[in-house]
Amino acid sequence: MSTTHPHPAHPLDEALALASTAPGHYTGQTTDAYWNMVGPYGGLTAAVLLAAVLRHPEAQGEPVALTVNFAAAVARGPFTVQAVPVRTNRSTQHWTVTVLQAEEEGGEPRVTTTATVLMAQRRTTWSAADTPVPEGVPAPADCPRIDPVFPVEWLKRYEMRPVRGMLPAQWDGSEHDSLSQLWMRDAPERPLDFPALAALADVFFPRIWRRRAHHVPAGTVSMTVYFHAGGDLLAQTGSGYLLGQARAQEFRNGFFDQTAQLWNEAGTLLATTQQIVYYKE
Amino acid sequence: MSTTHPHPAHPLDEALALASTAPGHYTGQTTDAYWNMVGPYGGLTAAVLLAAVLRHPEAQGEPVALTVNFAAAVARGPFTVQAVPVRTNRSTQHWTVTVLQAEEEGGEPRVTTTATVLMAQRRTTWSAADTPVPEGVPAPADCPRIDPVFPVEWLKRYEMRPVRGMLPAQWDGSEHDSLSQLWMRDAPERPLDFPALAALADVFFPRIWRRRAHHVPAGTVSMTVYFHAGGDLLAQTGSGYLLGQARAQEFRNGFFDQTAQLWNEAGTLLATTQQIVYYKE
Repeated sequence: MSTTHPHPAHPLDEALALASTAPGHYTGQTTDAYWNMVGPYGGLTAAVLLAAVLRHPEAQGEPVALTVNFAAAVARGPFTVQAVPVRTNRSTQHWTVTVLQAEEEGGEPRVTTTATVLMAQRRTTWSAADTPVPEGVPAPADCPRIDPVFPVEWLKRYEMRPVRGMLPAQWDGSEHDSLSQLWMRDAPERPLDFPALAALADVFFPRIWRRRAHHVPAGTVSMTVYFHAGGDLLAQTGSGYLLGQARAQEFRNGFFDQTAQLWNEAGTLLATTQQIVYYKE
Repeated sequence: MSTTHPHPAHPLDEALALASTAPGHYTGQTTDAYWNMVGPYGGLTAAVLLAAVLRHPEAQGEPVALTVNFAAAVARGPFTVQAVPVRTNRSTQHWTVTVLQAEEEGGEPRVTTTATVLMAQRRTTWSAADTPVPEGVPAPADCPRIDPVFPVEWLKRYEMRPVRGMLPAQWDGSEHDSLSQLWMRDAPERPLDFPALAALADVFFPRIWRRRAHHVPAGTVSMTVYFHAGGDLLAQTGSGYLLGQARAQEFRNGFFDQTAQLWNEAGTLLATTQQIVYYKE
């Protein structure tokens, strides 16, 4: 590698690198840059499988909906992505995507992740917001950037500027509401695209930590992202900050759900997302 | 069979009848009782494919998450459901489900519906609500039952008692918020189970009709349901009413999303759900 490397690849682009081995079949490689505790950051896995669809020669339109099911942790090393356009209509296209990985070299690949993706040709229609952007939120520059809130590598790939509802300062079991708001973007900056937006949808720490001020093991099991932005709006948003807002609806017997919204600095809603999260105790 | 038939099958049970033709392969038949405009009511299709998973001999645990993608209308007649347990862990199980139908007799079956299902063995843990049940809602008996709001057969399969936010009385283009609340249950009454709850999650008319007071073609393309209730809570709920609340978040260029909550009469949240809906104009 050259020591003068004026434009090194962004770590997200490195993580999204996929080699196509046959139509709809891709091989990728986990990167340490987005490592979470026992596997890659879930948002990154979502981004990777969405990238596989977008690079497929039969892909039509833009992503509208993505559901990812985290069936097992992806281990360090190579993995396979299979992306299949199961139904193409006049203006919509439905995909199933599977990530597979052998648990030992030469072993039989097992499913680690399942997903469905809806692509659509969007047309300009009557449009309206029905979830107002939160009021009284200071500008990103007025919200100090924080260091990673816990020691995992992927948190260093995001610039986070909390507005309200960050991790409890003390794990004292005092109950709070589960609402968090923060300004965020890729670190280093990178123009927003659909995989990056999918990854950002998973950026919120588990709501149960905030709600209980008690640290319990927790992990996302399934996540759905609805993209309200088209490519033109992503281009307008560029590498600006997104305002993320997340809250839980219900914590019950080992699972809680989270709903979240992601706006750009101009106050336009780019994506809404929800996830169901396993927790222990 | 006796000609005196004191307990005829409930129309939902008739619609959920599936013959197993091989492990994980089922054949069903559309029923007119749940017919929508150009195919079965989407909530019914969700119920049918969830029922296929629940009847699979390898099914473990209870449903926690369900995503259904409506890729094409199901036509009147027979259809096939394929349910595959792609990954079974210690306490969770991930399924992919596909509904297929030949477009002409003897033709090649095509995918009409894709789905993923998360099953889990739930354990009793710390639990808490973070979305309060709406205040000031009158009891079901104090909310008059309404006739179907538009002339489709499936609406007759639900008892609906609006609380607020029903269809505009006049299609005058005046804008409202998109919030609706109603008491609802199967008609005739039927003890709640997971397929019935999945079907109820799709009961809300398109939010855009309320938001715009303007009638445009609209149809759900993808729906996700998170089940917060276990079987014990469903049994407690029995054939009581559910309070449903739905609202949109964003309407943009041909698609809007909807988030909804379903509580039982005791005020316990049974399910949360979201969907993305195509609209024209």
